[in-house]
Amino acid sequence: MSHHLTKLMAADTPDTSERMDIRVYYEDTDTGGVVYYANYLKFFERARTEWLRRLGVNQSELAAREQRIFVVKDVELHYRQPARLDDLLVIHSDIMRVGPASIRFRQRAMRDGELLCEGSIQVCCIDAASFRPAPFSIDLRTLLEKAKN
Amino acid sequence: MSHHLTKLMAADTPDTSERMDIRVYYEDTDTGGVVYYANYLKFFERARTEWLRRLGVNQSELAAREQRIFVVKDVELHYRQPARLDDLLVIHSDIMRVGPASIRFRQRAMRDGELLCEGSIQVCCIDAASFRPAPFSIDLRTLLEKAKN
Amino acid sequence: MSHHLTKLMAADTPDTSERMDIRVYYEDTDTGGVVYYANYLKFFERARTEWLRRLGVNQSELAAREQRIFVVKDVELHYRQPARLDDLLVIHSDIMRVGPASIRFRQRAMRDGELLCEGSIQVCCIDAASFRPAPFSIDLRTLLEKAKN
Amino acid sequence: MSHHLTKLMAADTPDTSERMDIRVYYEDTDTGGVVYYANYLKFFERARTEWLRRLGVNQSELAAREQRIFVVKDVELHYRQPARLDDLLVIHSDIMRVGPASIRFRQRAMRDGELLCEGSIQVCCIDAASFRPAPFSIDLRTLLEKAKN
Repeated sequence: MSHHLTKLMAADTPDTSERMDIRVYYEDTDTGGVVYYANYLKFFERARTEWLRRLGVNQSELAAREQRIFVVKDVELHYRQPARLDDLLVIHSDIMRVGPASIRFRQRAMRDGELLCEGSIQVCCIDAASFRPAPFSIDLRTLLEKAKN
Repeated sequence: MSHHLTKLMAADTPDTSERMDIRVYYEDTDTGGVVYYANYLKFFERARTEWLRRLGVNQSELAAREQRIFVVKDVELHYRQPARLDDLLVIHSDIMRVGPASIRFRQRAMRDGELLCEGSIQVCCIDAASFRPAPFSIDLRTLLEKAKN
Repeated sequence: MSHHLTKLMAADTPDTSERMDIRVYYEDTDTGGVVYYANYLKFFERARTEWLRRLGVNQSELAAREQRIFVVKDVELHYRQPARLDDLLVIHSDIMRVGPASIRFRQRAMRDGELLCEGSIQVCCIDAASFRPAPFSIDLRTLLEKAKN
Repeated sequence: MSHHLTKLMAADTPDTSERMDIRVYYEDTDTGGVVYYANYLKFFERARTEWLRRLGVNQSELAAREQRIFVVKDVELHYRQPARLDDLLVIHSDIMRVGPASIRFRQRAMRDGELLCEGSIQVCCIDAASFRPAPFSIDLRTLLEKAKN
């Protein structure tokens, strides 16, 4: 999939992907002097959350009103270059695919145009009680499909 | 309170305090080469949890069965020496006071007998729905009082 | 100290304290449905870092150029009300005291004007190699003293 | 790769994989009531670290003595079932491949024999200063090859 990701990236028009700035603090780093590898998953989730919020989807309301929560099903991450304390990262988020109850994101952490970490993350919508897949409402699916283009 | 803690510590008989070993991993450190300051609160909570478990109190059962959860009300921490990657810490936990719906712990992170971080932590028992203080049952309070000595 | 903090807070003129907005994400919460207690120390450090940055102090440059790092020496935290997923917190940071090699901050996490958590944090400037206190340069101390008022 | 992983798992003889017990604490969970998705990367790293330690490889010594550190290059994770507060997880770690300067691990988080999360993690040995790949010494490579079988 790494090759596939690289191809897609080359074809990117920067204007279509959502962006979120994230500053690197002490909490994000480890004794190797770089951002700890698990923390990119935190950065990517912050970016997906803000992306959903801009679409009008508030996850805590969705949980309270419709008992639906988003969970991550699959993750693929490639670490290219380390990030360090005080770096200002830009997280790019693109929707690759929208299914009946799932979204596949491609997300990248960049610093001054340099790719540090890229990932492919599959998110599923599930029922908060049963933990079973719960299809998006038609309205939400339409919204997501539109955001894909 | 720092002076008070020091006095109490001198009077310690090592046999009465509960101990938990905790290894320092990459996740615990920061780019300064030491354990990140917030992470001692994680270590201390792990030790309190195991301390309660040994008393027969399982927090997830308590939440499910009696809708009671423990929350931290006040924290005081003094950082003495840094801990580093691969260090094996021993967390000592002592009960200082038991109230109707609260416990005050004194906790210390040690390495080879050297004090690295000490804290005083007030934990309250609350109702999970209302977030109001919920007194311990008589059985639990008796158990806690006994553990204090 | 709790009483002391309350008195100081009443006398606050909101304009003098630094503010930083922090959104609560999944990573910040725990199964109790609230922000995990250790994470306020992360929020407070982000706010102190930005406060220093606005004063012109970049911690990674200070470490590289002068081998000086800031470490936390003492922490006191009081938890008043829980924060939850998607909450927008405002972190207020005030300098209470500037010493030769230390700063005492008072920091508060607020939500819509309601106090959730307040803390008193003593930060020391140390030499990165020896971990011994390293006095501020005269320029930096002057800067800090000015920021106090 | 998901299918591939499943096939390999069926062929597992339980005796060959390294195991580490990990208890789930509040710090590991989120407001969804389950272990936060990034934290499996922490669990897996703890298990890899202990696996290396049992082989006689201490990462902080390796960094100090030979300026070599292990970094994660690629990660693939599949989330099957959620873990919850107080769960006792068993992390299984198997070496899939040893290269001149890299190791590919397969790791699984299990609870009572049930698969919760499985991953494939590529770790590289690099020079701590240049961040360039640094081949294992012959001794270490021999050790790793033996552990593979």
